[in-house]
Formats: sequence, structure tokens, C-alpha cells
Amino acid sequence: MTDLFSPGDERAGALMSDEALLDALVAVEEAWLRVLAKAGVAPVRADAPLAGLVSPDDVPALARASESGGNPVIPLVTLLRDRTSADPEVARWLHRGLTSQDVLDTALVLCLREVAGTVLRDVHGQVGTLRDLARAHRGTVQAGRTLTQHAVPTAFGLTVACWLHAVLDAATDLRAAARALPVQAGGAAGTLAASLELAALAGLEQPAAAARALTADLAAELGLADSAPWHTRRRPLTRVGDALVACTDAFGKIAGDVLVRTRPEIGELAESAAEGRGGSSTMPHKQNPVLSVLVTRAALSAPLTAAQLHVAAASAVDDRPAGAWHAEWPALRTLGRLAAVAASQTTDLLAGLTVDTGRMRAHAEAAGAGLLAEQASLRALHGRDAGTVVEDYLGAADLLVDEAVARADAFLEDRP
Amino acid sequence: MTDLFSPGDERAGALMSDEALLDALVAVEEAWLRVLAKAGVAPVRADAPLAGLVSPDDVPALARASESGGNPVIPLVTLLRDRTSADPEVARWLHRGLTSQDVLDTALVLCLREVAGTVLRDVHGQVGTLRDLARAHRGTVQAGRTLTQHAVPTAFGLTVACWLHAVLDAATDLRAAARALPVQAGGAAGTLAASLELAALAGLEQPAAAARALTADLAAELGLADSAPWHTRRRPLTRVGDALVACTDAFGKIAGDVLVRTRPEIGELAESAAEGRGGSSTMPHKQNPVLSVLVTRAALSAPLTAAQLHVAAASAVDDRPAGAWHAEWPALRTLGRLAAVAASQTTDLLAGLTVDTGRMRAHAEAAGAGLLAEQASLRALHGRDAGTVVEDYLGAADLLVDEAVARADAFLEDRP
Amino acid sequence: MTDLFSPGDERAGALMSDEALLDALVAVEEAWLRVLAKAGVAPVRADAPLAGLVSPDDVPALARASESGGNPVIPLVTLLRDRTSADPEVARWLHRGLTSQDVLDTALVLCLREVAGTVLRDVHGQVGTLRDLARAHRGTVQAGRTLTQHAVPTAFGLTVACWLHAVLDAATDLRAAARALPVQAGGAAGTLAASLELAALAGLEQPAAAARALTADLAAELGLADSAPWHTRRRPLTRVGDALVACTDAFGKIAGDVLVRTRPEIGELAESAAEGRGGSSTMPHKQNPVLSVLVTRAALSAPLTAAQLHVAAASAVDDRPAGAWHAEWPALRTLGRLAAVAASQTTDLLAGLTVDTGRMRAHAEAAGAGLLAEQASLRALHGRDAGTVVEDYLGAADLLVDEAVARADAFLEDRP
Amino acid sequence: MTDLFSPGDERAGALMSDEALLDALVAVEEAWLRVLAKAGVAPVRADAPLAGLVSPDDVPALARASESGGNPVIPLVTLLRDRTSADPEVARWLHRGLTSQDVLDTALVLCLREVAGTVLRDVHGQVGTLRDLARAHRGTVQAGRTLTQHAVPTAFGLTVACWLHAVLDAATDLRAAARALPVQAGGAAGTLAASLELAALAGLEQPAAAARALTADLAAELGLADSAPWHTRRRPLTRVGDALVACTDAFGKIAGDVLVRTRPEIGELAESAAEGRGGSSTMPHKQNPVLSVLVTRAALSAPLTAAQLHVAAASAVDDRPAGAWHAEWPALRTLGRLAAVAASQTTDLLAGLTVDTGRMRAHAEAAGAGLLAEQASLRALHGRDAGTVVEDYLGAADLLVDEAVARADAFLEDRP
Repeated sequence: MTDLFSPGDERAGALMSDEALLDALVAVEEAWLRVLAKAGVAPVRADAPLAGLVSPDDVPALARASESGGNPVIPLVTLLRDRTSADPEVARWLHRGLTSQDVLDTALVLCLREVAGTVLRDVHGQVGTLRDLARAHRGTVQAGRTLTQHAVPTAFGLTVACWLHAVLDAATDLRAAARALPVQAGGAAGTLAASLELAALAGLEQPAAAARALTADLAAELGLADSAPWHTRRRPLTRVGDALVACTDAFGKIAGDVLVRTRPEIGELAESAAEGRGGSSTMPHKQNPVLSVLVTRAALSAPLTAAQLHVAAASAVDDRPAGAWHAEWPALRTLGRLAAVAASQTTDLLAGLTVDTGRMRAHAEAAGAGLLAEQASLRALHGRDAGTVVEDYLGAADLLVDEAVARADAFLEDRP
Repeated sequence: MTDLFSPGDERAGALMSDEALLDALVAVEEAWLRVLAKAGVAPVRADAPLAGLVSPDDVPALARASESGGNPVIPLVTLLRDRTSADPEVARWLHRGLTSQDVLDTALVLCLREVAGTVLRDVHGQVGTLRDLARAHRGTVQAGRTLTQHAVPTAFGLTVACWLHAVLDAATDLRAAARALPVQAGGAAGTLAASLELAALAGLEQPAAAARALTADLAAELGLADSAPWHTRRRPLTRVGDALVACTDAFGKIAGDVLVRTRPEIGELAESAAEGRGGSSTMPHKQNPVLSVLVTRAALSAPLTAAQLHVAAASAVDDRPAGAWHAEWPALRTLGRLAAVAASQTTDLLAGLTVDTGRMRAHAEAAGAGLLAEQASLRALHGRDAGTVVEDYLGAADLLVDEAVARADAFLEDRP
Repeated sequence: MTDLFSPGDERAGALMSDEALLDALVAVEEAWLRVLAKAGVAPVRADAPLAGLVSPDDVPALARASESGGNPVIPLVTLLRDRTSADPEVARWLHRGLTSQDVLDTALVLCLREVAGTVLRDVHGQVGTLRDLARAHRGTVQAGRTLTQHAVPTAFGLTVACWLHAVLDAATDLRAAARALPVQAGGAAGTLAASLELAALAGLEQPAAAARALTADLAAELGLADSAPWHTRRRPLTRVGDALVACTDAFGKIAGDVLVRTRPEIGELAESAAEGRGGSSTMPHKQNPVLSVLVTRAALSAPLTAAQLHVAAASAVDDRPAGAWHAEWPALRTLGRLAAVAASQTTDLLAGLTVDTGRMRAHAEAAGAGLLAEQASLRALHGRDAGTVVEDYLGAADLLVDEAVARADAFLEDRP
Repeated sequence: MTDLFSPGDERAGALMSDEALLDALVAVEEAWLRVLAKAGVAPVRADAPLAGLVSPDDVPALARASESGGNPVIPLVTLLRDRTSADPEVARWLHRGLTSQDVLDTALVLCLREVAGTVLRDVHGQVGTLRDLARAHRGTVQAGRTLTQHAVPTAFGLTVACWLHAVLDAATDLRAAARALPVQAGGAAGTLAASLELAALAGLEQPAAAARALTADLAAELGLADSAPWHTRRRPLTRVGDALVACTDAFGKIAGDVLVRTRPEIGELAESAAEGRGGSSTMPHKQNPVLSVLVTRAALSAPLTAAQLHVAAASAVDDRPAGAWHAEWPALRTLGRLAAVAASQTTDLLAGLTVDTGRMRAHAEAAGAGLLAEQASLRALHGRDAGTVVEDYLGAADLLVDEAVARADAFLEDRP
């Protein structure tokens, strides 16, 4: 999958693509059929495969047919019933007990799990890179910059430690949100009525409990968290959305710092110029920090995309909402791909980052007196003379780097 | 073009698609070459065709190649130079004087013009439908509803007149914004330096004026407004974005009213059930107001997409921005298609709208005493008895309908 | 504190008010002075009180003086030094080691903790009310509504159970985010340089560790979480912001359902008409669902306010950001008060909610055949006749209510 | 009015304050009473003054009383009736014909007109300053910067011309939107029923036309545009909101450029250090670009505040909406004050801007070969040698400056 409006979009592969959604929808129907079979509710083979019955070629027709009912599950069920007509029991029992929102929500959750997994794999690599970079530059002196102006000296390793914390803050939330992603299987109005009816008709004892167990079974089949129906309480989705934005916020912070410092007058950092990256259509000499540019793009866009999920959540009236639900799908796709692409670009950005420690030191030394003005004012409290060596006013940078590194190590031990 | 995440997306056809963008990019390069030729700046035939040299098959490779420079124009120029190598002068002069943002901004503007045209054609039809509906129901009594509760009587024709005004408010702005869409041709830093250099090298007199004229010529070739470079002042784009949201706001207002009144307990309005529309995956009796649902979806999403354009505009530093510019492209595509789809769905919604005047009257009469409480309090001021007939308290609905109808007629005379 | 633009704003009391911020700023300076004294870094009494030195009367002058340096801490420090001039050591040591962002961020965190505490206290009450309501109406039959249309039967207790889950989803996140609110004390560029310098000048051993300990001591003094500096990684704030929006999302869902069902044609729910609430300026009979209206207002506004925090977080370049930081403060105030007011209004809304079980049943029975169509189709699979009793198709509502009630009980045991 | 969370807020004076809103509400009631009197509809003196009857001291009680009905007009009418009880006819006829939304919408419009006027007055001054600055620096050579990197040479006057166009783009829209601000006077459900009833009871001929004329009369009294009721079509407000954001976008672009160029390593621009502005709480040497910082703050916040108006507009169901309307008020206040403060700060920023033409030239010359690489490639097309003088590649900067200056002159002739 590529996108002419979004350079680098292919980095997200098939994540949240039409094909991925179709696969996920079919996987949910198939898993549910298996659940019904295993529970003795539907007289079908537990291993009736559906996945092979549809292909990416079906997407356009399904998409076109989805407006009529407002979502793609309705035509998909029709299609699957048609293609399983050789096995009438499968055709007959398919989708029984579910409503279209069950299938679509669970499929979106499966797609989001892939997004989170991809982002977290990238973050895993970034955390290693950042940890090493922080360690390597714990003693690299540079001018601290606040409100764009020189402040006090700092170490580049501490800048990196801050990036590292930011990435870990976000990744910790994303990991937790992804692990909590729940199955959806409530039936037409979230009552489990169809499940219960099927359980009762099949002669199961305690049909309410049996119906509730079907949801739990579906969760287990798909490796999702079990949950009561959440058709109109959307925190499971907004939580992932918020965590994805926390990720793009962190990536955007890094990219923003790189953009500032690749300015020719500063020149302390540079992106890798690998593979002719960074060229211009008219200026042969140009070397643009393209990865940082594209990550910044994502960081500027993601917050408003995620806010759409909250607007939708706040508008989720009735037992299943009219429009608010539908607004979530493209927002999730956009946000998911945006975050995955930005994660991947940030990985490359960090891996290829060139650090000019000489220019860092030169800027710090040129700004020396100003950078040490705070120190001088503190020493004056004790009647001591001002210092003159920027290295002598790096504070606890070393210790703060250690603290970030230790957190990184702990994170890396708990693999996604 | 279809989209499994956005039922009805195919209504937008190829608008803002990768293929449409590619065509527009090539059209800009071709028009520019023509401008250079006609002005005597480039020694090439004025009718050298580029459009046939690329095809939708080129899109994936171009998209993949676009990350390296951060935008698709750079690989496109390379591709076009390669494919015009049989005509070395064309290959040589192609794109000379432009920067990639010139080509991409102008192409986006061409794509947006298509979007605006499509939306305005839909609106044109809606205005006719709404005008007729307002006229037809100027005397249809119903309960006015404020803060969800019955207020005073009103006419359904006045509800429609309000919809009509809302659509006209938005369409007027969209039409103006679309007509003002400017060409972009400033060169690398918006100075026209390359254009001027080319003009001077070609021996043109007053090369600065000649360079500025090249931009105007490009505007004329493409039917756009002439403009000084606007690489970092983005009101031409935010203005269209804001107007598109004004459209989805108006469509959303209509859809929201339909959603309320199609509730079974109210039942005053219904969507056309044409072609099996509105079905459910599990409940055979269901008739969902799908068009209103999908229009509501767009209305909830568009404001935040358009806000992305403003965030980008506010962040447009330097002579061409790093990231803020790139964030605009997918936002424009999403917004453009969203608005076009919603416009088309609203057209169908209005065309198929079923009005149950009997239920309107029944609700108004059932609420009679309450609906006439305000009238009673006014009559008491004059010592007059309360009224009892809801039709007698319709206010100036008739006259207000006429006012809306007259505005509609005026709008329709000024065709897009 | 009242607000003519925000009816009900006084419910938020002094939360996030100028006075509350001033108190918090002074509390931070005071706690830091205590920390310095206890650690032997500053030769001042550990109990030097600052809180009494400023009053709400100082707010306007401080606010006016804050533009010059871009934040209110700078003039506050000047003011405090002036007012402690009788105790020169206090005047001298005040604020030493901190930067203005340390004081302001920590003060905002203290204010946010108050907000979260207030919201959680309201939620605590709501959870009890909702639990009781869910239990009481576990058998109250009503028509399930999806995409605005009648679907299958459900129990009103299950609607309430869904509200309960939504509130718990949000409150769980808010509680966690509030408990994790960190202290900020990094010094001018987040290096702890000033703290370390002070520790060294005071002759403390291992001055880096001592400096880091000062931050931890400040956290302990204020009951906050300890943390490395987070001047430019803003997840601690966006996390609270996201959780507050999750709360308004949940409140908005409840209010939205009430708005639908208080429509006169539905009339299943009503707000308490206590104290003349819900009147109109011109229609004596009107009874508007004012609390639901105002909660809906908050739910529509909060997502975009919270998104501002993410836009700011994504733009936090350098060691302390220029503008992105400043954009957070009013957004946090708006969001905090919005959430607190909405929480309080939702509490009242729920406490006064009138449930018309008769109308619920009447609507369900009127819609009977439709509501049982799904059941009929399932029974047909087993060759069984359709049912005719809506109560017989309530699914596992009872069990799902139990599940929500159990979750509520668990939540209530872990008091904020 | 000051705001401890928003440094510089006092620049907005009383704009959109509670007191300003109260004054505007009373002004609307007073003007309406005058309209009723003049039309012979109400037997009261046409000059019955209301403005003196309330004072800022009434604000807290009114605000508190406004929750009960959901808006401040209801308690205000009660208060005014109470305070005019000595003149029973005034008390009796006050507010007759209006609904609370009429009064509040018109009052908001009056407040917004003040905001627009203030912003436009600031813009007027900016346009003059920018014009002079553009002219003065038409020949000031600097390095063009695109995607953060050096591109081709440009003139600082052209940078300023771009700022000027951006400000004019926005101001033109704001002026148009402000001039079109409409009166609201539709009565309870926008039918003019009460107006018509009153006209009929007073024996006026053609009471519908007379009722409609009352609205027009109110518009004339208040200097607003006449309009049919727009209770649920909100383009008049979103149009102003969008234009205000266009202003903050333009201000943000300017501030962003200043922030980049005040970085010590660049140092081409500096804010005025007047009155000790720019100080730090701990670093005596610091000179922060505070105005640019605060303008950037506004530019990052305004887009999402304005988007709230669109979300509200899209949700405006029924004849007067439940919550969507209420969400607009604080968003308008925030946006209005934000824009007014940013306008004023931008005025000061521009007035005090220090331009270091020496550093501009030094950077351009240091980057010489790169800045002329495009020129060299064009000359090579003609077999000509590369240039070596950056001034020789300034393009049509001079002419583009003239174009912007001419536009500025035209704008200034049409005073607000």
C-alpha cells in the first residue's frame, strides 16, 4: 500500500488497509463460528474455514455494497453465505448471534493490535538506540536552549535521555492499551439475546451464562481481552488512540529538536544522507532533513485525528450509535497508519543521526559567560567567584542519564 | 475508488485520488512548459504533451520514491525527464523555474477545484429540492422543538427553509473560495528568481516583470486566479477547508434533524427505502436511516480535519515549511472526499425524503395547549383570551419561506 | 467563581482559578524552601511561611506583570522576595535551584490533582447511584434502539450498566493518571545544575545524588510522584487531559441518552424539575432537560480542548519550549473546570432522574413484532415458532447488570 | 480583566468579558423595547433606559441563576422586570417577542463585533508597519530557508511582504465576516410568531410583514445586518471564528519566523527589549522573545477552539439546539480574546523588531555557493558560467514587494 499524499506511507505496509480489515472481519466470523461449534450451539464443524473464501478482489464490491446498510459486514455476510452454500449448515449458522458492530469492532481491534505491535516493535529498537546514544553522549557538552535562547550548559546525552523518557511514557501506555483491547460480541442491542437464544435452543444449561461464555470464548480464540459489550462506551478505542498520539507526540519532540539543530547556522545534528535522501527538485546542493519533516507532519496531524474518536465517543447515544460509530473507522485507520509510519521513520532518523560534538562544544563555549550566569549568581550567595568552565555546570546530567537508561532496560525486558 | 472504512466513499469518484493528483501534477508541468514556450523562454514546442507519458500504473513507484525528497514532485520530474528523453529539449526545460511546492500546491488547488465543483453541483440540486420542499410544506403544521422539548407550532416548510439557508450560507462561501483558488509558481524560495533568470537568459526585456507574467500565464492556462507566491501563507487553502466544513455543517444539521424525526416514536420523516437500503445484518425488520447516519459521520469528522489545515498554516515558518506543508495534503484529501460524499448523500437523502404530514399534525395537536402557551401569555397582555388552534400561531413562516425561496432562486441563477 | 458564558461554572468552585494557581505557586516555593532548609542547603528556618504573604488581591498585578517574562512565576518571586525582606535569608534563598517552569508545572499539577479529586468524588457518588439504578431496573423492559431505530428488547438496567461501565472506564484512568502526577524540579534546562551547585556549595557529599534527592523531597513534601524533569515530555499532562475527556465522554453519553428519551414523543426519562429548573424566557409550559443540555455542551467541547495539549506536547522543542508550554495553561484550566462542572451536573442528573417504566414498556410492546424479529429468525433455524413476549428476549441483561454491579463495588472499595 | 493563566490577557480589555456580555444583553433588550415602542406594538416610551439598571455587581448572581434555565437571559429578564417595576408597562413589555437565544446570540454578535473591530484596528497598524518594513528591506539580502535549509537568496523585504499578504488575507475575511454579522430575533422557534401576535394585537396591518420588519428594525438599531432567524444555522458565527483563526495563523507565521531568527546562532531578528521584557527567573543574562512566544501560544490554540464552533454547528438539531448552542459561548470568548491579545502582541512585536542586516548578509554570503547552485544549473542550460553574487539572484523580490505594498495601500484606504 502506497499513498501519493503521504510520503513514506508504504512503511505501514498493509496495516489498517482495506485488505487487512477484510481479513480481520473474516477472521472474526470464522472464530465465532468455531466458538458456536465448540460450544455445541451450531451443528457445524469447528474447523470450517472461511478465510480462503474471500480475497482482496472482493474489496471493491464489498465497499460499494456497504453503503446500503451503512457498514461492510452486511454485504460480507451475504457474500460468505453465498460462497459457503455448498455447506448449507455453515451458510446457515454463520454470523448467528452477532450484530454487524460486533464483527466490525472486533476486526478493528484486531487491526489496531497489529498497529500497536508494529509501533511497539519500532519503539523497542528506538529504546535501544536511544539508550546507547544517551550513554555515549553523557559527557557531550552543549548549550541548553530554553524559549529558543541559550540557558545553561547541558549534555547531549541528557537531551537523548529526555527523548527516551518521552518514548517510554508513550509506549508504556500503548502497550497497556493494546493488551486491554477487548472483544465485542453483544448482539443487536448488546444484550446477548441472540447468543442466549441459540444456547437455549441448543439445550445448554444456564443459557445466560453460556451466552456470556461465548463472548469469552471468542476473546480467547482471538487472543483479546474478554469484555461485556461496549457498543456505546468507547474508551477501549479512545485509550489506544490517545496512546498512539502520545507516541507521535514523542516522535514529534525528537523530530522537532532535529529540525532545529540541522539548521545550517546550528549544524549540531544531521540526518543520514543515505540513498540520496533529502534532495530537492531544483536545488542540487540541498540536503533536507526529510525524515524529521515527515515525522513532524504526523505529529501535527495526529492530535486532531485522535480527538475525532473522543467527539464520536461523546456522541454515542442509544444502544448503537448513528454516525458517531461510523466516524471512528477512518479516523482509526488514519491515526494507525500515521503512527506506524512515524514510528518507522523515527527509527531510521535515530539510527542515522549524525552528532557533531565539535559544533555543540563550540556553541557552548561561545555562549560561555551567559551559560554560567546562573552558576555565578548562586556562587555569589556563598561569596564564591564565578566559574568559567561549562563542563563544570552540567548538573546531574550523568545521573539523570543513568536513570533513563535503567528505565529503558526495564522496558526492554518486558517485550511486547 | 472505494473505501471499506468509509461506506459511500465511491460517490467521490476519483476526486483527490492518487491518480487525480498525478494527473494534476502532470497538467501543471505541462502547462508550465507551454507557458515557457509561448513566452520564448524555453526553446520547446508549445504543445509538447506530457499527459500521455504517465499512467496510474506509475503511482506506486512514484509514491515509494517520494519519501526520499519528501514529496512526489521530485520523482515525477525525474520520470518525466526520462520519458521525454527522445525530445531532449523537453526533458531539459521541463520544470525549470518551478520548485516542487509550486507544482504540488497548484495540483492540489486543481484537485480542490474539482471537489468544490462537485460539491456545488450537488448543492445546486439540493437547493432546487429544498426550495420546492419549503414551498410545498409552507403550511404543514408541526410542533416546534427547542432543547428537545415542544415549544411553539411551526411549519415544516420553515424547517426546510432553514436547511436551505444553511446550505446557501456554505455554498456561497465555497463558491467564492473556489473561484479565488490561486496558482502557485514562486520558485525555490518564492522570489521568482529562476523565472527571472530564465527570462533574462532568453533576452526578454524587463525580466522581473516577465517572470511575474509567467505566473499569471500559468494561472490563465489552468483557469486559476493569479497570485504572488503563497508558500507560507495558507489562507487560500484554509479558506476552502473552512467552506467545505461549512458545507458538512449544513448537511449535518439536515441529517441530524432527519435522525431525530425518523425515530419510531416521532416518525415524521423517513429516508427512502430504495434498493434495500437501511437493512441490518441480523434484524430483518430494521430500516435504518443510513444516509443520515453517514452524513452525520462526515459532519462529526470534518471540523477536526479542517482544523489540521489551520494548525499547519500557523506553523508555516521559513520560506517553505518543514512538516506543516506536508500535513496539509492528506487532510485536504480526507476533507475533500468527505465533503463530496456527504454532499451526494445529502442530495439523495433530500430527494427521497418522505414527509408524514399526518404525524406532524398529530404531534402538534397533541401538544396543543403547551404550544400555545406563549401566545396565551401575549394575548393576556391585551386582555384577550388564549387561542386554541395551532395553525393560528405559525408566525411569519409563510413570509420566511418566501425569503428563503427568493435567495435560492438568486443562487441558482449564478451557476457554478 | 462564576462565568456568565458557562452556566453552572460555579460548581467548579475555585478549581483552576487564578487564586488557586497563586496558592499553588506559593505552596511550591514554600515547600522547596523547606526542602532546601531540611537538606542543609539553605540556611533558613524550615518552617518559614510564605502562604500568608500574598492574597487574591495580588492577582491582577501579578497577572499584568507576567507578560514581561512570559509567565507569572517571575513577578511572584520578585513579590515574595520583597515581602520577605524582613528576613533577608528567606528572600535570598527563595526559589534558588528552580526555574519558573518547575514552579508553574508543579503548581498546575497540584491544581489538576484537585480537579481529579473533585471529579472522582463525584464519580464515586455516581457509581453508587448507577449501581442502584441498574439493579432496580434490571427487569424494566424497553425497546433497544440502534441507529435510532427499534432493534430488540432490552432492560433499562442494562442501559444503566453501560453508563456505569463508561464512567468506570474513565474514572479508572483518571485515578491512575492523577496518582502518577509528578513533581517538576529540573532547574533552568532540566539538568539539576543549580540544585547540584547549591548542594556542593553547602558541602553535601555526592552532590549530584543530593540534588536529585531534593526533587524527591519536594515530591514527598507535596504528595506527588517523584520524577526526572519532564519539561519537554508532556505525557503526565496529556494523560490527565485524556482521562478527563474520557470522563466527559462518559457523561456525554449519559446526557445524550437522557436528551433522546426526554423528547415528549418518547418520554421515558425526565430530569428532576427541582427548584424551577428548566424554565424558558417566553414559554411558561417548558421544562427543558437543562442538566443534560449543559453536560452535552461539555462533552462537545472537551475533546478539542484536550487535543490542544497534544498539539503542544508534539511541539515541545529545545530544553523548554517557546509557546507550546504556554498554550497548555489555559487549556488545562478550561478542561479541568469543564470536567468538574460536568461531573457535578451528571451527579445531579442521575440523582434526580425520573424513569417512566410504563412508557418504556408501552413502547416496547408497541414495537413488539419488530423487536422479536431476530428471535423469530433464530428460532426458525431450529424449526421453532416465533416468540411473542418481549420479556422473553432480554438476553443476559440480568447477568450483565451483575457484572457491572460487581465492578462498581470493586471500584468503590478503592476510594480516591 | 487579567488572567494568571494567559500572560498578556489584559490587552483584550473587557472584550468578551462577563461585564461586556451583560452590557450587550441589556443593550439588546433595550433596543428591542425601543423597536416595539416605535412600531406602536408596545405602549411604552421609546427611550426607556435599561442600561443603568444593572451593573457588574449583578454578574455573579446572574451567572449563578443561569444554570436553572441554561442561559443568562432568563434571570436577566426577571431582574430587569423587577428593577423596572416602578414603570409597570416597561416591566410588562420587556423581552416580549424574543426568546433567550435571540438576546444571547445578538449580544454575542455585538461582542464579536467589538473583537473584530479591535483586531482590525491592530491589523491596520500592522499593515502600515509591515508595508514600511517591506519597503525598507526590499534590498536586504538574506539566505532563503526551505525545510530549514538554505535554499536561494532572498530579500528580507520579501519575507515581510509575505507576512503582509498573510495578515491582509485574514483581515479581509474578518472584515467581511464582521460586516455581515446578523441580528437574531426569531422568537421561540424562529417563526416570528410572538412578534406577529404582538403586531396583530396592536392592530398593525400585514402583521407578518410588520413582524419581519421588527427584526430589521432591531438590526438597524444595533447597526447589524438584517437576517431571517439563524438559530440552527451557525455560519455567521463559524465565519467569524474561521476568520479569527486566519488572523492567528498569520500572526503565528510571523512569530514563528521571529523565533527561528532570534536563535543566538542565527541572530538576524530580535524583539525589542523594552521595559525589561524577556527576563528569566533564574538566569540573569536571558533575553527571551516573549511576544513571539505568546503569539505562538495563541496560534497553536486557536484552531482547535474555532473547530469547536463547527462541531457545534454540525450538531444543531431541532429548532434550537440542546448543548451545541451552549458550547459556542465560551469558545467564542476564548477565541475572541486570544485573537485580540495576539493581534496586540503582534503589533508590538512588529513595532519593536530589530533587524540585523549584517548577520543576514553574513549568513547569505557564507552560504553563497549553495544559494547560487540553482542559478548555476539554469545558466548551464544556456552554456553560461555560474554567478557568484548573491544579490544577483534575488529574483523579482523588488516587484513582489511593490505588489504587497500596493495591496496594503488599498486595504488601508478602506478603513474598518
